[in-house]
Amino acid sequence: MSDIVNRRFLLVRRPAGTPVEQDFQLVETPVPAAPEGGMVVRNHFISLDPAQRGWMDDAPSYMPPIALGDAVRATTVGVVHESRNPDFAAGDWVLGLNAIEDFSVVLPGGFTSAIDISVVDSPSRYLSAVGAVGLTAYFGLLEVGQPQAGETVLVTGAAGAVGSMVGQIAKIKGARVIGIAGGADKCRRLVQDYGFDVAIDYKGKTESELSAEIAAAAPDGVHVVFENVGGTVMEAVAHNLAQRARVVLCGLISEYNAGERVGLRNLWQIIVKQATIHGFLIAGYVNRFAEGGAQVAQWIGEGKLRVDEDIQQGIDNAFPAFMRLFSGANTGKLVLQIA
Amino acid sequence: MSDIVNRRFLLVRRPAGTPVEQDFQLVETPVPAAPEGGMVVRNHFISLDPAQRGWMDDAPSYMPPIALGDAVRATTVGVVHESRNPDFAAGDWVLGLNAIEDFSVVLPGGFTSAIDISVVDSPSRYLSAVGAVGLTAYFGLLEVGQPQAGETVLVTGAAGAVGSMVGQIAKIKGARVIGIAGGADKCRRLVQDYGFDVAIDYKGKTESELSAEIAAAAPDGVHVVFENVGGTVMEAVAHNLAQRARVVLCGLISEYNAGERVGLRNLWQIIVKQATIHGFLIAGYVNRFAEGGAQVAQWIGEGKLRVDEDIQQGIDNAFPAFMRLFSGANTGKLVLQIA
Repeated sequence: MSDIVNRRFLLVRRPAGTPVEQDFQLVETPVPAAPEGGMVVRNHFISLDPAQRGWMDDAPSYMPPIALGDAVRATTVGVVHESRNPDFAAGDWVLGLNAIEDFSVVLPGGFTSAIDISVVDSPSRYLSAVGAVGLTAYFGLLEVGQPQAGETVLVTGAAGAVGSMVGQIAKIKGARVIGIAGGADKCRRLVQDYGFDVAIDYKGKTESELSAEIAAAAPDGVHVVFENVGGTVMEAVAHNLAQRARVVLCGLISEYNAGERVGLRNLWQIIVKQATIHGFLIAGYVNRFAEGGAQVAQWIGEGKLRVDEDIQQGIDNAFPAFMRLFSGANTGKLVLQIA
Repeated sequence: MSDIVNRRFLLVRRPAGTPVEQDFQLVETPVPAAPEGGMVVRNHFISLDPAQRGWMDDAPSYMPPIALGDAVRATTVGVVHESRNPDFAAGDWVLGLNAIEDFSVVLPGGFTSAIDISVVDSPSRYLSAVGAVGLTAYFGLLEVGQPQAGETVLVTGAAGAVGSMVGQIAKIKGARVIGIAGGADKCRRLVQDYGFDVAIDYKGKTESELSAEIAAAAPDGVHVVFENVGGTVMEAVAHNLAQRARVVLCGLISEYNAGERVGLRNLWQIIVKQATIHGFLIAGYVNRFAEGGAQVAQWIGEGKLRVDEDIQQGIDNAFPAFMRLFSGANTGKLVLQIA
């Protein structure tokens, strides 16, 4: 922790498959000054997300790749350190798209919003329950998937930050919920901590074994799939769609480090079941964030929604903390606290 | 042609990849008698469709596989030969799901409807323009794809029976239309005969070459994709989707004979573009067939819609005629005339 140097976690080489420590470098630089009309933010909590792995590739996506030599882009919660922007004052808590670094320069017009930390038990909540994670679960499931009471909802990556919220919201809406996760401990948490009806462990299973387990858990088929994983897991699910099933395609974490992408080989099932696949980005719902955040906060307040955070400490730990996303080690929304 | 024996084109072995002549057998059997409440239909025109290849596999689909030793299931137009069904009389023209054979037994409750051949220039029109082909193009494009005037619609398998109608209907609705087809002659027909704005020949091109050609033809991206082909062609298109593109997934003809299915490896593009893939079966629109058929017939009458048929002759030619679907030889709706 430092207030006189700016430690920055740089991307210095594009990862080939799974990132290795040599792809990154932690450097010390002077604390920057605020540009005219902009500000400098002291980051406290940094969101670690699968999407960051995609931004490290030099491939077309919904955002430009992180430039080599730049700090790794991240959503952060922090405090305004110096402001030359009339809308913000030093000391204000803010949420913005910054980077893994002690201090971030925010240019005029950058994506930054003030947050009220008096209404949450920790500022990190703006990176989980009432942030992008909660809004992704809320809008992805309810607006795109549109589960009806009595329908079966299946969530992949179910023990993850988004997945565990999706399952709980589906339960609130009266659906039957199946979660797929890796390992006995995560499966136990799905049922005990998050109230899923069925948990299926995908580890060590072939596509057909996994498909048979899903079929046993959902004999009438799956009506809504919330897909975070892709690959074999998604293909096993595709064999078990109900007619007119809706697949909310939110992420493909099994593919982000893979050299060759698998995609969905049994696309034919989408025709057979007259199913739909909906590519989902939370960006499509920006103008409804307040509504979604308020509903999620209310459910948490009512004890209907449990949101876990996995808070790792220190910018020195940025690399091992980030890798917890891919090893399956994290339990809850992964956050790096650096101040 | 025979009225005293029933020649039947049987599936005797499940094709491994591309069908070969030994997978089938043409046999002569006695003309069957009508069962109680049912009838016997003398088939005249037999629809040859990519879907039949799928029915030959022992794989889960929207219909049971064709049993080994059974005649190859097909939609046919014919004349009632003997009726014990009070709704039909001998001599009536009917459309039904029968098989490649001179005479089909229609059980009570089977899918058969009377057709009025006085309103068409050939009974075969009920297998093309005003049949499943025309209705697939009509409902798939307009109800699922929902192209808006000024948007870009891309059709794969564009010179095929469905594809050529989709492109023309998209033009009627004011869209800009790109067709992908195999070979210079088909591409010439797309522009000259069917009024497509751009035709792209996929033959001999890599995914990235094809993608670059699509990008040049649709610099703002493709808003609606009518997908009949799958595989590399679909993947090249996926790189060029506009935001919120709609993909009408109607067929995957490139995969029906393939040992290993490719599917859509760049599924990530569906997320990035917030696109949707809609599995489409015409069966979902049965209760609106009359409306669709009337509109298609009206456009044909007004000279706005050209529907070509490729009519092959004789049940002896069933195998080579069917294979025209996969060699790309057919130009227009492929029909086998056997009486």
